[in-house]
Amino acid sequence: MSRRIYNFSAGPAILPETVLEEASRAVSEINGSGMSLLEVSHRGKDYDAIHADAEARLLRVLGLSADEYAPMFLQGGASLQFAMLPLNFLAAGQHADYVVSGDWGAKALKEAKNFGDAREVASSKADKYAYIPKDFTITPGARYVHITTNNTIEGTEYFKLPDTGDTPLIADSSSDFIALPHDYSKFSLIYAGAQKNAGPSGVTMVVAKKSFLDTAKTDIGTILAYKTHRDSNSLYNTPPTFAIFVVGQVLKWVEDQGGLVAMEQKNRAKASILYNALDELSPFFQTAVTAKEDRSLMNVTWRVADESLEAEFLKEAKAADLDGLKGHRSVGGFRASIYNAFPAAGVQVLADLLRDFAQRKG
Amino acid sequence: MSRRIYNFSAGPAILPETVLEEASRAVSEINGSGMSLLEVSHRGKDYDAIHADAEARLLRVLGLSADEYAPMFLQGGASLQFAMLPLNFLAAGQHADYVVSGDWGAKALKEAKNFGDAREVASSKADKYAYIPKDFTITPGARYVHITTNNTIEGTEYFKLPDTGDTPLIADSSSDFIALPHDYSKFSLIYAGAQKNAGPSGVTMVVAKKSFLDTAKTDIGTILAYKTHRDSNSLYNTPPTFAIFVVGQVLKWVEDQGGLVAMEQKNRAKASILYNALDELSPFFQTAVTAKEDRSLMNVTWRVADESLEAEFLKEAKAADLDGLKGHRSVGGFRASIYNAFPAAGVQVLADLLRDFAQRKG
Repeated sequence: MSRRIYNFSAGPAILPETVLEEASRAVSEINGSGMSLLEVSHRGKDYDAIHADAEARLLRVLGLSADEYAPMFLQGGASLQFAMLPLNFLAAGQHADYVVSGDWGAKALKEAKNFGDAREVASSKADKYAYIPKDFTITPGARYVHITTNNTIEGTEYFKLPDTGDTPLIADSSSDFIALPHDYSKFSLIYAGAQKNAGPSGVTMVVAKKSFLDTAKTDIGTILAYKTHRDSNSLYNTPPTFAIFVVGQVLKWVEDQGGLVAMEQKNRAKASILYNALDELSPFFQTAVTAKEDRSLMNVTWRVADESLEAEFLKEAKAADLDGLKGHRSVGGFRASIYNAFPAAGVQVLADLLRDFAQRKG
Repeated sequence: MSRRIYNFSAGPAILPETVLEEASRAVSEINGSGMSLLEVSHRGKDYDAIHADAEARLLRVLGLSADEYAPMFLQGGASLQFAMLPLNFLAAGQHADYVVSGDWGAKALKEAKNFGDAREVASSKADKYAYIPKDFTITPGARYVHITTNNTIEGTEYFKLPDTGDTPLIADSSSDFIALPHDYSKFSLIYAGAQKNAGPSGVTMVVAKKSFLDTAKTDIGTILAYKTHRDSNSLYNTPPTFAIFVVGQVLKWVEDQGGLVAMEQKNRAKASILYNALDELSPFFQTAVTAKEDRSLMNVTWRVADESLEAEFLKEAKAADLDGLKGHRSVGGFRASIYNAFPAAGVQVLADLLRDFAQRKG
């Protein structure tokens, strides 16, 4: 690339340069085969190895065993998972509990209600999702509890998973997947669109406990049933081969960097640079998240107290090669998405601009 | 690429070299932006232009107007369309008619039955799908008639569309999409996974008459409703941006080559080279399709009368850089998939090998 700019886009988002180089090469030719990765059969030996490698790495990075967990590569984004969960797990007379910590959690709940009895058991909506709701009571007999581990729009994140006892815990982890270590064996099912930390758009990773999948409904047709994809190792129909290849390369990069522990260290260091600057410059700049312990390492959100300065700040950022800082259209302000592959140097440039701007305009 | 081999794979399949070069470059960097195509927001200006261009080209190549038809780029392959069709169009008390001309048509029907009253009105299964069933009677009140325009596994293809009168015609056109001109305004909805003629795996094109979409059900949730994707121009959730970019490039290539009329001419010329050789070499080689007028231009299928020679033929083909000729596991024998981008020179190499092999072994 001629000049690399700092891309704070919320997703699709920045990827490691070495991964992009590999991906570009694979589009030209794979394994000296005389064929592009885009051209080879999903049932041939070149792709077979890519697929199996990505599956194995996914479990390894999460610290899960193939005996207990099934990794799946699906299509349709987290939005299709919002529908597949109730379709697969809510029979007549059954219900599920949803913790709503942001806009995406609200969407998950709304879609689930179209297919079954889904109930909100906690929400921070009344406070503009400024924190993660931690106190809630699981309703008796709930089939599962659904959370959103990172709230891309609002900028909050779970650092301690809720204890749901014997009730299966399910998470949409789209925007902080493979960004920090959890005890992933606490999840009965975790899913994530790839286009933040893990790859390009067009593939959704679903990792589920086999014993939980065994309890899924079997009368919901073929393509929407997890069983179909689990039993076929995500090869029931043609998978998004290129996107899965890139995910595999990103997982390799994560392992080469030292795994999820190293990812969290780097992500904490990067986020601190920004949060320290914003705290120091308050009230000129204001963070939206009220619970400091819930501040996301992935998406840092803030406003200028004097909103008339917003356009000017964005313009200066753009001039400094800082791209994608506009907040989500539903909340306004600013958002810096600093996923795994985002370099600390770029975060520092932004922090410097925040200080400089506040000094000149404050 | 160091050496380009002849890739007869049924899908993912061969793509134009110029398209692969563009795609490889875009993965490195898009529009001198300092960002990879994989990294840019699906709501930013770089991707906006790609998306709108692909939509416009899709309608233009098919000869359809944006006033009458809506183009959509979805995920999940044709297999998800098998479910979405009955979900969207079959209310209680309604039914649809399916013409089963091959394995994929049978799958479409089977999945539709999981979601509504889907009826087989014609099938050539008893004759191993050796022809396209042309005589059938639409059942009174059928909501739509579903056909499969090209049967990838068996090697048959529609060259004349059935006249379904006022009953909406729907087609799975995955394996001969943009390969020949039809009067596409006869379709109320046509869909195709991209990974044969149109691009990499991971995106499904759906082109539907707006007046037909207006009759869809509205009580089926969000993500599975065509309305959602139509109303948002396929941007309800993050689309598979890279796959859509490649489809746009393939459509550009088709237009540059002279559109669908030119595609059909080239495809007929290529297929003739093979069918002429196979007819000439009969009964040593035998084509499975009994109705010559239904012979596919996309997938040419045949067997060696003496099956013990199959492995040897495959080995010789591989040695001659002819890859992917093994027939589908459900039918055996051989299959040469010679989609739009497949060069005539490669077909000639295969025809020469057929003649040479028959002479030596026959």
